[in-house]
This record gives sequence, structure tokens and C-alpha cells, in this order.
Amino acid sequence: MRKSIATVCLSGTLTEKLTAAARAGFDGVEIFENDLLASPLAPEEIAARTADLGLRIDLYQPMRDIEAVPEELFARNLRRARHKFELMRRLGADTVLVCSSVCEQAVDDDALAAEQLGRLADLAQESGIRVAYEALAWGRHVSTYDHAWRIVEAADHPALGTCLDSFHILSRGSDPKGVEDIPGDKIFFLQLADAPLMAMDVLQWSRHYRCFPGQGGFDVAGLLRHVLNAGYDGPLSLEVFNDVFRQADAGRTALDGMRSLLALEENAGVSPLPAPVIPSGVAFAELATSDPEPVGELLTALGFTRTARHHGKPVDLWAQGEARVLVNAGTVGRRTDTTLAAVGLETADPAASARRAEALLAPALPKHRTAQDVPLESIAAPDGTEVLFCATGRPELPSWTDDFAATAESAGATALTIDHLALTQPWHHFDESVLFHRTVLGLSPHDTVELADPYGLFRSRALSAPSDGPRLVLNLAPSPEEGGETRARHVAFAVDDIVAAVHRFRAAGAALLRVPANYYDDLEARFDFAEGELETYRELGILYDRDERGGEFRHCYTETVGHVFFEFVQRSGGYAGFGAANAPIRLAAQRR
Amino acid sequence: MRKSIATVCLSGTLTEKLTAAARAGFDGVEIFENDLLASPLAPEEIAARTADLGLRIDLYQPMRDIEAVPEELFARNLRRARHKFELMRRLGADTVLVCSSVCEQAVDDDALAAEQLGRLADLAQESGIRVAYEALAWGRHVSTYDHAWRIVEAADHPALGTCLDSFHILSRGSDPKGVEDIPGDKIFFLQLADAPLMAMDVLQWSRHYRCFPGQGGFDVAGLLRHVLNAGYDGPLSLEVFNDVFRQADAGRTALDGMRSLLALEENAGVSPLPAPVIPSGVAFAELATSDPEPVGELLTALGFTRTARHHGKPVDLWAQGEARVLVNAGTVGRRTDTTLAAVGLETADPAASARRAEALLAPALPKHRTAQDVPLESIAAPDGTEVLFCATGRPELPSWTDDFAATAESAGATALTIDHLALTQPWHHFDESVLFHRTVLGLSPHDTVELADPYGLFRSRALSAPSDGPRLVLNLAPSPEEGGETRARHVAFAVDDIVAAVHRFRAAGAALLRVPANYYDDLEARFDFAEGELETYRELGILYDRDERGGEFRHCYTETVGHVFFEFVQRSGGYAGFGAANAPIRLAAQRR
Repeated sequence: MRKSIATVCLSGTLTEKLTAAARAGFDGVEIFENDLLASPLAPEEIAARTADLGLRIDLYQPMRDIEAVPEELFARNLRRARHKFELMRRLGADTVLVCSSVCEQAVDDDALAAEQLGRLADLAQESGIRVAYEALAWGRHVSTYDHAWRIVEAADHPALGTCLDSFHILSRGSDPKGVEDIPGDKIFFLQLADAPLMAMDVLQWSRHYRCFPGQGGFDVAGLLRHVLNAGYDGPLSLEVFNDVFRQADAGRTALDGMRSLLALEENAGVSPLPAPVIPSGVAFAELATSDPEPVGELLTALGFTRTARHHGKPVDLWAQGEARVLVNAGTVGRRTDTTLAAVGLETADPAASARRAEALLAPALPKHRTAQDVPLESIAAPDGTEVLFCATGRPELPSWTDDFAATAESAGATALTIDHLALTQPWHHFDESVLFHRTVLGLSPHDTVELADPYGLFRSRALSAPSDGPRLVLNLAPSPEEGGETRARHVAFAVDDIVAAVHRFRAAGAALLRVPANYYDDLEARFDFAEGELETYRELGILYDRDERGGEFRHCYTETVGHVFFEFVQRSGGYAGFGAANAPIRLAAQRR
Repeated sequence: MRKSIATVCLSGTLTEKLTAAARAGFDGVEIFENDLLASPLAPEEIAARTADLGLRIDLYQPMRDIEAVPEELFARNLRRARHKFELMRRLGADTVLVCSSVCEQAVDDDALAAEQLGRLADLAQESGIRVAYEALAWGRHVSTYDHAWRIVEAADHPALGTCLDSFHILSRGSDPKGVEDIPGDKIFFLQLADAPLMAMDVLQWSRHYRCFPGQGGFDVAGLLRHVLNAGYDGPLSLEVFNDVFRQADAGRTALDGMRSLLALEENAGVSPLPAPVIPSGVAFAELATSDPEPVGELLTALGFTRTARHHGKPVDLWAQGEARVLVNAGTVGRRTDTTLAAVGLETADPAASARRAEALLAPALPKHRTAQDVPLESIAAPDGTEVLFCATGRPELPSWTDDFAATAESAGATALTIDHLALTQPWHHFDESVLFHRTVLGLSPHDTVELADPYGLFRSRALSAPSDGPRLVLNLAPSPEEGGETRARHVAFAVDDIVAAVHRFRAAGAALLRVPANYYDDLEARFDFAEGELETYRELGILYDRDERGGEFRHCYTETVGHVFFEFVQRSGGYAGFGAANAPIRLAAQRR
């Protein structure tokens, strides 16, 4: 279907917004009036620019407080509309959005509303314009889609139809099934937005917290199916008011919006995408550094062995059990500090994974890092992390391991695996990252966790494969001005016996994060432990959490090297979380 | 009265929080459990540190989900409480906050709640501890202060009292008058917080948007009067959860909180402050620059004359009518660009103004800028702006003009005055700045204006003197990462005839901000104008606004020099605003 985006979704000047929409592949735009007013371009110039970019102006919006008012006021409203229709003629826009009135002088009189909207439509028709009447969720007398439709139906005018908006419908808790009772050709427009489920004033909710479909809690795909069943065949148009989007790069936001629509079409059964290939595990975590010594020392103390080296680049493979860490020192001059730069994910079909990613607009990275390298499918995640699709140990497919030559056997005493990867996200793009990993990789998002942290607000959302596959934890840095440790990312390894592991780490001189004694006093108040158990944790710096069903989580952290640290976790009893309750303790300890 | 602050109000480690509280002059603190858990200091060390700083630990908090639960669960809760009482003994804290339960297993049984709270109080009493029971606004069965008091009354235990919290009481819309029915000695604690009036889930509202008394919309002083009438004589304690405070400097936040309590005591009639001396006008605006040429050229083109020079420093006085601008070039090497650095306010009694400011913890600046200068009372506002208290043209008092020697007569054709000063604020300290100017200067805040701007959210709040005195407009920069023009501040001059003024500016070559033609098309659609009026505005770049009562506002802007620009405004018909509706147009034009 045609895809549009309202200019209000994007940051910047009107020209920047149009360019971003075109580059992301949209077919059309809604021109938001304020964007036009602030633009130095004349309407004819905007029309030309839009056409040059291959975009159609699908809607001009909004026209407010028109209907169900005293005649004298309505006459002034018609005068205002005449000016706007003239503007639309110059702009080449043929549909205008009229929002249900919030004006104090509006009366609760559907017949009057229908009569006046009919007269507005008469005027519009003279200019070849269609009027799409929409119920604002906070409209004074008209606040539901079925009410707006009854008025449109009563007016019975060829130039008057309704506009449906998923936010206005779903935020009110209206049953969207009734949409199917509206004739498709009277649905003049469809605006799509999602929102996190919040109990707050619907106007504030709408103005600040809307997000793209799939990023919130509404069943936008379900609504879309009803609208399509009604026979609607106009554009799918995103209209999102969001304080974060307003400050973010327009090009990225537009791509995020397009990805959201593609996933929505798939979800609603409109048009398929290459099926997701859900990763089955983590092949490796790759650290980039200009100084591999400190992290190498730490890995050694943690029981890792440097088992192989890349044939042509200064990249070492460190292994322990099934856990593999690449340390890439080939980035001298570009980075100064150790970072978690890439992730290798095991997939049943790397090429199919890449096709899915490409269809969802993930930037593909070069298959060959150098001419000698084995070809690998890889993409860039929104945060810049490189995601490589791997087929480790499957002779029929090229494997990243073919680029490595063994240098030593893994000591391999411990059955280590990578439990999860924690990727700190820039605050502008948290929701974009969640949508990306959900749609491109087919991972399932967990609930968002929000915790007060001494220096800000800690926000975190995990995504995992349905079965035993990889887990990613996206953490939002508490503040854009915060730096240092809060940007640090980490790799968490799963062990069977964390107490034994920590004893080994200590013997080998690994620097572990120190946990305050007060934390253990609190654990003692909250939980019963076996004799001596808590003392062991206290002595070793092991953190503890227990879920409502008795599942247990024991974990500890290393000190940070550059912008990376490691975690060790021991899960039991079906514990599926990540010890979020302990995050403030960890963050405070890291800041010291 | 004793003044306390909860550590949760402040950013940083527990040690940083305690230090900030002591420096701001608090007598005591509430220790928030999470701050203690994350601290590497043992409870005894925290007790010693607190005592060294001259602080008392007035409360340990919170203890949650204690009461009205099945016996087996209550036994576990008592076990937990025993640990916490032992902790409090080590800490030297003698009062604990117990919040009404939100636990799913809690039952709606006041008798059981009273019985169990009584048993908790028995245990507390053994350790010399008092239990203060508080109704959370979102408590499962107990959510109002009178309900909590009924349970405390029923328990009838000397170690059990109630804790009142202004947020929990006022957010529910409870009538606070009933507080007077509680015996004062059973009110064990009083927590104070304000909040902006918002229609949202009360838990989210409380966790993220609380602010200090006087910064929100609640009548905290009215509540305090009721609590004092009841006979309460414990501490006034601030308990504020606020996402911005969590990221701001703890020392500044603590001072802001103390200023809020001092103003609250004055407001509630508890203890007076030196009376405010409301400024009667603006003596001058002072620009600091390392290059006075560009701004001098602009001032000349705007009709200003350089009328005097400071006797000992490179400071020029530019004047036109009653409007005076100082250009201070004595800051070479410290600043690179022109900024609005200081404001001179006319006051009936500069020394009294300074006494009020000092009592409200405003940092006093040296009276003599150099040894030769006339002594002037001056203070630093939260944003760093220097505020000087002036007595211009009053021979009995020293005047800033005594430091200046005339160099030329003012051409003075135009009756210019300073209409307002617009001071962009760092986002961390917006509410602090409003409280500062309201309490220290006695200005009255207008409603907050929030507007979507193409690059973020534009937030603005004006303060003005009741009669014809100075007006300050505090604008919040749209984003911490935004820079450039959005940081620019401006001086607005009032003229009688803006059309004539702009003709003169143009003839003199002043660079005025260009306003897009589309803006005027929209004005034409919205308003009726006299013949030719709109064309004049369009040609001259004059913006227009009209209020609901027909008051009119015509204004225009110069281009920006460094971080400063000028506005000219013509008010008529009692227009009291600042043309906020045009701010997005101005911001977009400035970004080009």
C-alpha cells in the first residue's frame, strides 16, 4: 500500500523533513500547517520540491474548530477555510483534515455539525478538495470514530468523508470492529500511531508520547485489518507527536517509521516480508580496542584462553567452553577505548537473515572485511553495533572461524556460554532499537523496566529468542549529559556454579566489582538463605535476586575496562530476568 | 522550625547528598533506603558522617507492605522489620516511615491493619523506635490521610503515629482541614512536596514530577497551616522524586529546596523574612562581549546613542529614551561572544532588596566591582545572570550612573523603554529559576507556555511585577544537546509605533529577522486587518498576535549578534503576553 508520513513526525525544516521522507522510501506526506508557516518556501515551491522528491502531498492538516458553532462564528470559519483551500490549491493538496471541535462555543448538535460540515464540503468541492473529518479523542462533543462517522453519514456529501486515527480510536478504548461498518470509500484517510499504555490525560499522552506502530502497546495491526476489511485503499500514514523524535535526526526517524510500517503490513497480512530467521545463539562478542593488553589480562584471569588469531588482522579469539570473545586491535586511531562493537549471532540461514534485514531497511555492511576474508552477512544496528549472521561449525556454509588459525587449545574447564549482551543505547533511539531487534531478528521484547538510579532514571528492555537463543538487554543511559561508566556495555556469561567461578577468578587475580556490605544486610532482611550462603555472597561480591515463583539469579561483575565489563550469571528455577533490581547497586559501585 | 530533606531528592552518592544537605543549612535528613544500600559506608560510619556535618537522621524510609496481611506473611514482615530496626540502631535513626500496603495479599481490614501495626510498634518500641504510618495515594486499601489516622487511632500505641505527606494528601484532592482533628503529638512526621497540576496516574505523577513547595500547583502553605494548627512541632521535611533533580548538581538542588522551605514558612506565617521590595523597572541590561563593535553597530542602527563611558573600565552606556544598554568589553579572554550577562533593576530600597535576597540564600556578589566604583548591591541568579539593585536618579543613594561620565547627548527621538528580558535557562534549573525570581524579587509567575517547535519542545514562563515593573521571560532551551541560537537571550524594547520604528531601523541598515510569507497568509486567514495593515507587516517583518479580549501585540526581531538579539514590541488593548504563538516561527527563522 502507499505509505505516507506527517511532517510533524520529523525534526527540522520542512525541506529537511521532505528529504528525509523521500530517502526513507515514503510515497507521500501530510503537510503539517506549522511546518509550512515556518518555511521560507512559497507553496508553489514546496509543491515543486515535493514532486521532485517523488512525493505526493496526501493531506494538509489540521483545520480546527470548524463545526457546530453559532452562524456568525461559522461564517468566519468558512472565510478561514477559503484562505486555506486557496493555499492547498497552490500546494497541490487535495485532502484536508478537519478535527472535531474543541472550541468552547461549539454546541452538542449533530444535525448542526452535519449541516455546517456539508457547507464546508461545498466550498471544498469547488476547489476539488475533499474534507476528512476526524474525532479527536478529546473533542468537545465528538470524541469517538463512530460518532464522527454518524455526522459524516448524515451530511451525505461526496466531498466529505472521515479520517480514522489509530491513536484516537485505541486510546479511548473504543472497539475498532465497528470500523467495518463504514463504507471504504467514505474513509478518506487513515493515520497510524501507537503509544505506550499509560494512565494519563489523553491530550498530553497524544502530544508527547505517541510512537510508531509496534513501539507501543496498541493493537495497530488489528485496527488496520478492520480498516482494510471496510474497503479502505488509501495511504497508510504515520502521524506521531513525540518529544524525542522532535530532537532526533529526521533521516533516522523516517527510516524507523518506514520499518514500522513494513512490519505492520506484514503483521496485518497486507504484504509479506522474507520470514524472520530467529537466531539460535551467540557465536561471539567482538570487542574493538586500540590496546588489547588490559582486556586480554582480564579475560585470562577469567579463565579464557587465546585460542586463535585472524589470518590477516590483529584479531584474537578468546574462548572458554562455548563462550567466544573476539578482541580486535585493528582499529587503532579510530577508537581509543575498549568497546563492545560487534555481535555474531548463530542463524540457520545467514543469507535469509540478511534478506529479512534488507527488506526491513537495515544497512548491510560489506560482506568481506578484507579481500582475503570469508564472506559474512552483516548489518548495522541503529546504535552502530555490527550484527554478523553466523553458521559456526556447519561445513556446508562459510564460517567466520575459517578466517582464524588455532594458536592454543582452550583450557575449557568451565562450561561457559554467553547468557546475554547488554547494549547501552543513545536515548534518542531506544524505541527504534527495540523495534529493530524485534522485527529484523524476530526477538521478543520483555516489559520495560524503569528504576530510579542515584544519578537519573535507569530504563531497560530485554529481547530474547523464544527458546534458548540469544538475549539482548538494551539499557538507556540515564542522561544525555552522563558519560563514563553509564555508556559501558557488557557481556554476560552463564555459569553453572558462580561461587566456584568467583573463587577461581579471585585466585587468578581478576578485579571484580565491590558490592557494599549494606546490600547484604538488606538481602538478609528480605530472604531466607541456607546456612553460610549469604556470607559466601557477601565475601565474594555476588548479587542475588529471586522472582515471585522462587526462581533465583546469582550474578557478579568485573571492573570496567575502557567501556566494557563482564558479568557472570547463574540462573535456576526458571528465573528469566536480568537482576534489574540490583542495577542501581551496580551503577553506584561502578561510579566510585 | 527544623528543616529536613530526604536523600532521594538529591543526586549522587549518599556522602555527596549529606554534604549538600548540610551546606544548604538543613538540620536533618531522611535516609532513603536505596541510598544506604548503594553506599560503601557502614551504618555507623554514616551516623558519624551525618553527626560531623551537624545533621540529625530524622527518618529512615520506606518500610513497605507491612500490614493487613495473612499471619504467615506478617511473621516474615516482622522478621524483615527486626533487621531494619537493628540497622536503624546502628544508624542512630529513631523514626521509621511505614507506607500503606500495595501488596496483593493485603486485605481490606482496618482492625487487622491496626492490630499488626500495633505489633510492629511493640517491636519498634523495644529498640526505642517510633513508627510513622503514611497513606500512599495509591495504597491498596488505605490511600487517604484520614483513613491512615483512623487505623493509627485504633491501634492506640505510643510508638505508632502517622506521617503526613503533602503530595499524597493534595494529589487525591482530599480536604486538608481534617488534619486539624489529629492530635499534634500523633503526627510523627511531615513530608512536603509540590507538583504541577496534571491529569495522570498518581503513581507516575509522584515518582517523576514532584517538585519543591512553591514550584507546583498545590497549596502546600495552606496544608502546613492546618498541620501546625493540629500542634505538630517536628521537622518540615522535603521529599521529592523528580527526574530532573536526579540528574542535577546536589548542592544546587539542596539550596533550591532550602529556599523553597524558607518561602513556605513565610507564606504559612511560621517565620517572616525581610519583606520583598518589588522592582519598579529595569535600570539597564548589560551585555558582556570581547568585541563591542558588532553590537555597537546594531545599537546605532536601532537609534541608540553611546552616551557615557565607565570611568575605569571599557564599559559603554547606550541609551534611547528610557532604555539603557551597557556594553561591557572588559571581559576579554573570558567570553568570546556577546551575551546578556547582567540586569539592573530599579528598587525603592537596594539594601532591603539585598537583605531579602540574602535571607533567601541568593549568592551576594562583591559590592565594588573595582575599588573606585560606587558600591552596588548585586546578587547572582541561578543561571549566573548578575542582578544589580539600582536607585537611578535618586541623589540620596549611590547610583550606578555615578561611575559613568557623559560622552554625548542621547538623540532620544524615540520614547523607548525595556519591555522585558528573555533569559534562556539551562533545563536542569528552570523551576529553580522561577522560584528564585518569584521569592527573591517578589515577581508573579504567569502560566507556563509549552509549544511544539520543529526541533524540540519550547517551554516558557514569564514573571512580572504586579504594576508596571520589570518583566522577565524564562525560556527553556529545547534540548540539552541543542546549542547555538536556542541559547540566545534577548532584550525587548517597547515602542509606541512599531511600523515607524522599523522604517527607521531599515533606513539605518539594521539587520532584522526575516519572517516567511506563509506566516502572513495564515494571519490573513485568521484575523481581519485594516486595509493595507497586513501588507505593511509582511513587508517589514512584523509579527502579530491578538488575545481573546482583543488586545494586540506587534513585534519584530533583529538578527542575532553572538548570543544576543533584540526585540521591539508594541502592546495595545491590555495585551499581557509575549507573542508565544509566534515563537516557533522566530526559532525556525533564527535557525536558518
